[in-house]
Amino acid sequence: MKALIFKGKNKIEWTETTEPVIVEPTDIIVKIEGFTFSHAYYRPYLGQDDSVALNTIMGHEGVGIVTAVGGSVINLRVGDRVAIGCITHCNICQWCLRKAFAKCVNGGFILGTKINGTHAEYVRIPYGDNSVIKISSTIKLADALMLSDVLPTAYENVIKKVDFQNINNIAIIGDGPIGLAVLLLINKYHKEVDVYGHHSRKLDYFEKLGAHKGYDSTKTSLNIKYDLVIECVGHDRGTFEQAQQMVNFNGTIITIGVFNKSVVFNLQQLWYQNITVHTGILNVYTLDELVTKIEAKEISPMQLVTKAFNKNQVLQAYEAFMDKDIFKVVVKL
Amino acid sequence: MKALIFKGKNKIEWTETTEPVIVEPTDIIVKIEGFTFSHAYYRPYLGQDDSVALNTIMGHEGVGIVTAVGGSVINLRVGDRVAIGCITHCNICQWCLRKAFAKCVNGGFILGTKINGTHAEYVRIPYGDNSVIKISSTIKLADALMLSDVLPTAYENVIKKVDFQNINNIAIIGDGPIGLAVLLLINKYHKEVDVYGHHSRKLDYFEKLGAHKGYDSTKTSLNIKYDLVIECVGHDRGTFEQAQQMVNFNGTIITIGVFNKSVVFNLQQLWYQNITVHTGILNVYTLDELVTKIEAKEISPMQLVTKAFNKNQVLQAYEAFMDKDIFKVVVKL
Repeated sequence: MKALIFKGKNKIEWTETTEPVIVEPTDIIVKIEGFTFSHAYYRPYLGQDDSVALNTIMGHEGVGIVTAVGGSVINLRVGDRVAIGCITHCNICQWCLRKAFAKCVNGGFILGTKINGTHAEYVRIPYGDNSVIKISSTIKLADALMLSDVLPTAYENVIKKVDFQNINNIAIIGDGPIGLAVLLLINKYHKEVDVYGHHSRKLDYFEKLGAHKGYDSTKTSLNIKYDLVIECVGHDRGTFEQAQQMVNFNGTIITIGVFNKSVVFNLQQLWYQNITVHTGILNVYTLDELVTKIEAKEISPMQLVTKAFNKNQVLQAYEAFMDKDIFKVVVKL
Repeated sequence: MKALIFKGKNKIEWTETTEPVIVEPTDIIVKIEGFTFSHAYYRPYLGQDDSVALNTIMGHEGVGIVTAVGGSVINLRVGDRVAIGCITHCNICQWCLRKAFAKCVNGGFILGTKINGTHAEYVRIPYGDNSVIKISSTIKLADALMLSDVLPTAYENVIKKVDFQNINNIAIIGDGPIGLAVLLLINKYHKEVDVYGHHSRKLDYFEKLGAHKGYDSTKTSLNIKYDLVIECVGHDRGTFEQAQQMVNFNGTIITIGVFNKSVVFNLQQLWYQNITVHTGILNVYTLDELVTKIEAKEISPMQLVTKAFNKNQVLQAYEAFMDKDIFKVVVKL
């Protein structure tokens, strides 16, 4: 089969490799119908971290058809169409029992980093019963692919944590796909949502999809206060500081961005402001709810997809994904 | 009348001064039956901050009888017994409309700091209708005095913010009156509550009143993880760092302590831990609920009071309050 293999800094190959087979009785094999790319690979690809092991097949987002199941798989059969969750989990370890699937001692965020991932014609998914969701053939590929990561990330970190009743206005910091997924999910609450980013074409797209206003983070003096600030950038970009400046009295900051070092928390001002800060990784525990929303046409996550490619264009698709003007790219095999 | 007047660093006088009179139609005058002291005065008394204006009558905690009401006071009459809330508020400014009484542009935390306070035989309370609560004569003075500050501080920052259903164990950092008030309020949830402090006699008292175990913060290696960590110290004591080390996955940190500078927030670890941080000042919006709980004997806040004095012992009472082994001191006039 063909697969996208990580060969080190700035180097990936779409090349022939061995097809996966069932190893554990809880495994399933999925024939990939399509995949998408995650910003989680920016940094390893650029050589900025070593989270992806050399020669690994990349990818933790994919949709496909089950072609084999291990002996102890109960809920899935050959022929089932599934969306693969980016968090693999055993459901029986100490963390899984607390629904902290991301910390599963036998799984976690391993697809495409520690074990071969979804950017391939076939993928082996450990703990298949828990780590994918069955979907009907009527769900469009671009909608279904958003279930793997970006949609539950936004849903679990924002919708499941916030009571929108007392919120008047909202700021999203970060004009990438996570921020856009958040916007698509909160549109139903009819609040004023501003977006702060660096890419004018992306900010335009946010406005087109329901944002009140897009602001260039570098040019804005940031004197608006928001009841809810959703930080979707992470790392050393100063966005946690920005969030603290923007949050209103009684307000909430949610950090979805991944941080690799500590930040300054202005408790000397914020203890007095009655604020709440939520941090979180997704645990992909809401796929059934999200599938229902897609089927009911309550949300249209395919709006996140701004470019599509076929199986002969995988490397071009990867290049497009690295282009900062694009949200999500899908590849249909 | 006699009053306790702040005369600068390490200097207070219990001395004769002018009785207050109605100034605004929303004012009331209260003849003080008793008062207590707040740790908010430690730092100004020690010359570490200038929050209390020179020659001000100190105090924001008191119980007494209304002796005069301004022309526009509706809910109170001469003769009513009241507990005075430490937050004075107008109920009509932009912040009061959001229930952020502590930020009231016409009031806030002004009693005993910006205007004369409760450590006197009489006190003028602005916005009397909003800033005190009527109580029956059957409530004991020591119970009633805890309504002014310590009890709503604990109630509003902890009980009103936390769902105890998913919490197994709790750490209170700080062995002072706020921590003890928290303990008294959370005892009803029957969780394992550990207390971290520096004073063995105080820690013993926590254990006597329901804590599972008191730990000396300086001697403990802190390897227990807690679902809820309630920080009640503030300032530069390293307690926010301690709270971050102690909080469990999916856990919550509440900071009640007052911080005068920023802290380091370990987002590089905590973004992954799915935690929540609440900061907050009390707004004293729960006095009716707390009075009901006292009347129903659901709580006994007088357990916070470990020493009592009479009107001839005000300076001794103040000395006792500065003694770190004592929780709350009351003075009955």
